[in-house]
Amino acid sequence: MIPQWIIEKKRDGQGLTGDEIREFVEGYTRGDIPDYQMAAFAMAVFFRGMSEDETAILTDAMMRSGDILDTSAIPLPKVDKHSTGGVGDKISLPLAPLLAACGVAVPMISGRGLGITGGTLDKLESIPGFNVRLPEEQFLAVLRDVGCAMSGQTARLAPADRKLYALRDVTATVPSVPLIVSSILSKKLAEGVDHLVLDVKCGRGAFMKTPESARELAGALVRTARAMGKSVRALVTDMNQPLGRAAGNALEIVESVEVLLGRGPADVELLTLTLGAELLQMAGVAASPAEAVDRLREAIRSGAAMAKFRAMVRAQGGDAEALDDFNRLPAASIQAPLAAPTTGWIGGVDAERVGRACVVLGAGRTRTEDRVDPAVGVSGLAKIGERVEKGRILAVVHANDEGRLAEAKRLLSGAFIFSDRPVEPPALIIERIA
Amino acid sequence: MIPQWIIEKKRDGQGLTGDEIREFVEGYTRGDIPDYQMAAFAMAVFFRGMSEDETAILTDAMMRSGDILDTSAIPLPKVDKHSTGGVGDKISLPLAPLLAACGVAVPMISGRGLGITGGTLDKLESIPGFNVRLPEEQFLAVLRDVGCAMSGQTARLAPADRKLYALRDVTATVPSVPLIVSSILSKKLAEGVDHLVLDVKCGRGAFMKTPESARELAGALVRTARAMGKSVRALVTDMNQPLGRAAGNALEIVESVEVLLGRGPADVELLTLTLGAELLQMAGVAASPAEAVDRLREAIRSGAAMAKFRAMVRAQGGDAEALDDFNRLPAASIQAPLAAPTTGWIGGVDAERVGRACVVLGAGRTRTEDRVDPAVGVSGLAKIGERVEKGRILAVVHANDEGRLAEAKRLLSGAFIFSDRPVEPPALIIERIA
Repeated sequence: MIPQWIIEKKRDGQGLTGDEIREFVEGYTRGDIPDYQMAAFAMAVFFRGMSEDETAILTDAMMRSGDILDTSAIPLPKVDKHSTGGVGDKISLPLAPLLAACGVAVPMISGRGLGITGGTLDKLESIPGFNVRLPEEQFLAVLRDVGCAMSGQTARLAPADRKLYALRDVTATVPSVPLIVSSILSKKLAEGVDHLVLDVKCGRGAFMKTPESARELAGALVRTARAMGKSVRALVTDMNQPLGRAAGNALEIVESVEVLLGRGPADVELLTLTLGAELLQMAGVAASPAEAVDRLREAIRSGAAMAKFRAMVRAQGGDAEALDDFNRLPAASIQAPLAAPTTGWIGGVDAERVGRACVVLGAGRTRTEDRVDPAVGVSGLAKIGERVEKGRILAVVHANDEGRLAEAKRLLSGAFIFSDRPVEPPALIIERIA
Repeated sequence: MIPQWIIEKKRDGQGLTGDEIREFVEGYTRGDIPDYQMAAFAMAVFFRGMSEDETAILTDAMMRSGDILDTSAIPLPKVDKHSTGGVGDKISLPLAPLLAACGVAVPMISGRGLGITGGTLDKLESIPGFNVRLPEEQFLAVLRDVGCAMSGQTARLAPADRKLYALRDVTATVPSVPLIVSSILSKKLAEGVDHLVLDVKCGRGAFMKTPESARELAGALVRTARAMGKSVRALVTDMNQPLGRAAGNALEIVESVEVLLGRGPADVELLTLTLGAELLQMAGVAASPAEAVDRLREAIRSGAAMAKFRAMVRAQGGDAEALDDFNRLPAASIQAPLAAPTTGWIGGVDAERVGRACVVLGAGRTRTEDRVDPAVGVSGLAKIGERVEKGRILAVVHANDEGRLAEAKRLLSGAFIFSDRPVEPPALIIERIA
């Protein structure tokens, strides 16, 4: 099969056969098909799209380009959650131990942050000693012993996606639904999970800016997974304002612990419980939404979920005492309040600007090779609908550099919109696709 | 400037600035922009096209990516002709010496054949000793001494085009008008010519299959050259049947000599004179079409054109006596006639099938690294409108291998369409764009 003929077929809007897609992915993984042919193919897919069948075959081929984690020795339903990423989205951190406390296993392969989007691995690494580079055997051992494990993508997991993901970034072929779908699902399904729930973020702080585009992606994700015979559901959720009150690596560890202690921000708790309830029902552990939420709440109340988090941190080499004594987490040298310029109701908190302020502070990276500062970020963020008096605190900026602090405060000041009348908070959960 | 941002702009249908196009081409030429980014860019151009301004800037940047031949020491108008390629198209061979005999200089950089399209360099190399790899100084010396020189593209001439041309071939980005235009014109205008005439082939044996697509390309070529301030005209000409009666390297040298001796096939002579007359008028050497054709005919009648061909072959190391004694040219071991299966008028000669028969015989190549056999091909081809009696010769197949001969005869048999009524030969010149 000649690679340029396959590119040409896609370019001209003809459907590709399963063999053509598989040979293209396999050739690319082996290195027989060079980056320049994959780049032309990806751009042709950007313009022509892919049918559901093509997307499912592409995803399957990328999933099979490396190892598929063998979790069969663990006699529990295996579940996972994936988010398309946003500002302050730390849901994975409380959710994994919470689910483990409810009798399902969570083999969670996560990523790093890029741009305004935070990454679970970066957040976990703010816990002193926490190792996010577990070899496969150790990952499986933590999963078996604790019930949840969180680590980065190994070289052997979906290598076609690793290569293609990096290539798309530099060839302007990121925003293509079939390529996004195959990237997300190939990695997640290579984890060997039985049930997967997807959180498709939507709004100013997300990759998908409009509900329509987020719904399109969520629908394509669910349909593709179905076509592959997988059990998958998706939620479209709001990302116009940041999730929770904190954004930044160590600061989000603190907020995650607060959720597991039952005193987290309402939106983070709601989304954690909603996503968790979907998975408990999919796994057959709970028969109804109410029963699922009850089980999750009980795991928080009893301390079982927090115990799982401590156990996972310990098993992955981290300082579990830092979860109880936040002084053991990295702290910024400057904590500067941002004061409200007026009295009123918060009408908007621009998640993109908050995210950019975090990048400026050093909490995020602009290039994959950048290092992040675990201590910096923002906390105590006011939320839409809250009333704030002039001079009171809208947010606390954690910085390690006066210049960056000033730039971050400038960005943050522009993030808050005030209203002189009460404002209804936006719906967090926009749509459920099951 | 970030290369992926330029790709993204083109992907999203936004116009590119001159600086963006120039930096992209310069970065690619230097190797700072890798093939995979250029491949994605080329595919985005395939889908989005380019404005006339963008195409002119791209062409200019590619032309300036290397040396521009300095022909200023030669005190004559410098002219050239380019064809988009077809089966039996040997017009360059008689045209260059014919023009040189009429007082203009022809610095002709030519290419090799690929697929069914023959290449001028391959044909010239069938003359024993002929050197098509002249260094720049020697090329200029032959041009000065003879009035015409024919050689291959040096590494220093339009290197961006060399790289991009090879890349497009393997990334399914060949059929894009702005990319074709910039490839053709960047090379030809780097020759330092004052006037250029383009022969855009159209039909079954050409890259452009329909008059509409050929007209579109011809129009884009002329408009782009105009936007660059260059003197360029174009003809759209028929390539449904092969040009002339011979296809194959040495066989086309023979036919070219016959044109210069005034006894060539009518269609080859007509096109040679028409293209030559355009250039003589553009160069100010002739005031009218009639005067131009008279000068060209006189150069043939007087032997001046043939003398120029001999002189050029000698100057480029070739055996000039082979032009007078065809026994000195490579000859195939088998000459097999193809007999007419019926009596009638020739209604069609499928140039594509004739071209494929030549490739099968070894006259053409399927990959750029293949070698060609100078001796093989077809001669004595019947032309549309001619009456042929059953059993008489439709073509003579020149082969060096019995298996290839059989396959070529099979292909050729299917190339001829018979009519039981007289058939009008098709118009050779479909349109003139001046």
